[in-house]
Amino acid sequence: MTTPNRWIGACRTSSITMVMDRLRSVFASWMYTEVSPSLLEAPDGEGRSALLIPADRAPTREGNTQLRSDFTAAIARSIALSERGTPRPVRRSYAGTVFRRSPRSDSLTEVRQAGVELVGAPSPAADAEILCLAAEGLDAIGATGAEIHIGHAGFVRALLRAADLPSEVESQICNQIARHERTALESTLTAAGVSGELMAAIVGLLDLAGNASVIRRARALTDDPVCRATLDELEEIFRLADSPAVMIDLSEVRDLTYYTGIRFEAFAPGIGCPVLRGGRYDGLLGLYGDPEPAVGCAFEVEPLSLLCANLDSDAPSSMLLRFPVDRWAEAQTAARRLRAAGSRVALDPEVIPSEEVSDYVAANGIDEVELLDRALTGRPS
Amino acid sequence: MTTPNRWIGACRTSSITMVMDRLRSVFASWMYTEVSPSLLEAPDGEGRSALLIPADRAPTREGNTQLRSDFTAAIARSIALSERGTPRPVRRSYAGTVFRRSPRSDSLTEVRQAGVELVGAPSPAADAEILCLAAEGLDAIGATGAEIHIGHAGFVRALLRAADLPSEVESQICNQIARHERTALESTLTAAGVSGELMAAIVGLLDLAGNASVIRRARALTDDPVCRATLDELEEIFRLADSPAVMIDLSEVRDLTYYTGIRFEAFAPGIGCPVLRGGRYDGLLGLYGDPEPAVGCAFEVEPLSLLCANLDSDAPSSMLLRFPVDRWAEAQTAARRLRAAGSRVALDPEVIPSEEVSDYVAANGIDEVELLDRALTGRPS
Repeated sequence: MTTPNRWIGACRTSSITMVMDRLRSVFASWMYTEVSPSLLEAPDGEGRSALLIPADRAPTREGNTQLRSDFTAAIARSIALSERGTPRPVRRSYAGTVFRRSPRSDSLTEVRQAGVELVGAPSPAADAEILCLAAEGLDAIGATGAEIHIGHAGFVRALLRAADLPSEVESQICNQIARHERTALESTLTAAGVSGELMAAIVGLLDLAGNASVIRRARALTDDPVCRATLDELEEIFRLADSPAVMIDLSEVRDLTYYTGIRFEAFAPGIGCPVLRGGRYDGLLGLYGDPEPAVGCAFEVEPLSLLCANLDSDAPSSMLLRFPVDRWAEAQTAARRLRAAGSRVALDPEVIPSEEVSDYVAANGIDEVELLDRALTGRPS
Repeated sequence: MTTPNRWIGACRTSSITMVMDRLRSVFASWMYTEVSPSLLEAPDGEGRSALLIPADRAPTREGNTQLRSDFTAAIARSIALSERGTPRPVRRSYAGTVFRRSPRSDSLTEVRQAGVELVGAPSPAADAEILCLAAEGLDAIGATGAEIHIGHAGFVRALLRAADLPSEVESQICNQIARHERTALESTLTAAGVSGELMAAIVGLLDLAGNASVIRRARALTDDPVCRATLDELEEIFRLADSPAVMIDLSEVRDLTYYTGIRFEAFAPGIGCPVLRGGRYDGLLGLYGDPEPAVGCAFEVEPLSLLCANLDSDAPSSMLLRFPVDRWAEAQTAARRLRAAGSRVALDPEVIPSEEVSDYVAANGIDEVELLDRALTGRPS
């Protein structure tokens, strides 16, 4: 059974539009230029987008085309190939749909995302910019109480390098850290021959969530100079981002094939999945062109739209303009003037029976009923 | 070879965004509520959407799903099935992508459309509302000189009923009228046994384009009472719509299986395809629920985006805020205040070398460079 959109029953479509519009407006105010990549893509010959979306979650091909499963790869490719000469950094935003395959039911699902990519700017200031923008975006859509958990791909990667494990074991370990499966993690490490201080350091990641003091505790776990350098970087990013919504969580280690620096997810009260994901991906642009630093994030629009029921509408005031149809031309003039002054105006050439007008106005959230003669004599009170 | 989007090379993505945003704002000001139907649809068991999109142009199925090829059917279905109790008329708008299959290359193409549907309101006032909104929409996106050609499905249908022809011959005749193939039309009519006054009336449609005088000339062609009634209706709609952009064109007879009343297309100078299509489709809602009158139109966003190169951007003023990275927190405060005052602000913690700032500003269309100390002392001049 296909579920074209699993959230569509749970929220009014206008909430989705409102979330998208508010995020687009935040992105624009930070000077991110909106791009609108194609929904149909040529399948990526070398499986590069598999870096982002596991093969079993990507839409299947149809002939030479495949449905878009991700914005970041499309935007990175376009910047690497077509915007080589554009001065850096490049700021791009998007708002639209990606498709995911549910491995269980083999059906396609639509997922609406809105996000930003900042290409050509190095850590830590660019990372802090994305975190500040993420916090402001969550705020703009009423996601009060949301927490952004930042980890760092470099820290766990350097720790694991010391253990010299096969890559399948590394990713099993990362998944167990991310899911906080302490017992399973200890068994995996033991089976892989990891013990002593290194094992304690890796298992210790599970307890490294909180404010700046986490960095101090992490420093105590290891003398590895790469680990120390990533902690310095993370500390600086955290200091710059300086938002009550941001916290450090060194167990944020999912998707490490893709992320190279910070990696974050945001959680909002009452929503059982991350409402925002992002991080630094300095390895992606180089797959298409010159290597370049890059960082970005994506907001998950459908779950976020569940939060905005209590937000005030952004829409300007509205009226139903009632007039006899033989005064159509005058009504058009009046409506044009009212719209130019910022009102939304629905025309009613007395098609709605007068005893049903109040129901109509209530059902459509219309602020007032305006009669033509009053509208012609000036802006109604 | 797949062409994910045939217009994408010809226009900047920001033009597409601008066209969509301006149309959405016109639709909202006329109190049309934006809906966002699923891109994936359950294939329509009884082939209802084939009324709108010929089978060879519809995307193929994948499992239980098919890509959306049209907004109108999805919105009509939703209003008929889920909004039975909503007071009429219902005003809905949309802005997004539909997919079409190119019969020649068997590849899928993305087509961006934005449009409106007005359900539950009868002709002629509702038709005139859609035409006025269409003219205002074209105007808002700088499609100066565009012409909206209105025909009436009822007129040609009543004429052809008198000839009592098989439906394949009827649609061949309609296509020949729409393409203005006079000689081929005369041969088809002769072969079908149509001659004399009826043939003259049908061929006469080719010459019935212009202002209200066209209606008078059309009345002279036939005594058929249904033809006369449709001309009365068309005359009234034309009188109400009262826009220099609107003209009558009785050869507008494509897609008559779908349209039941007026049917129109708009053409803009320099664009080789219609930039807007619409009409009355009183037969569609009844396929899903109770029969209801309905009229709507769809703007073709990609071709229209070619016209808006000369439009002024809607974007507010922009600045590059330059600051030493150790003053990050002050810069965030200043940027927040500037954004709240309506500016777009790009942050530059002195990542851009000073000799490259002017190139950066020019390439990104940034209005001014602002230094932190000046930004902190108040709104710059």
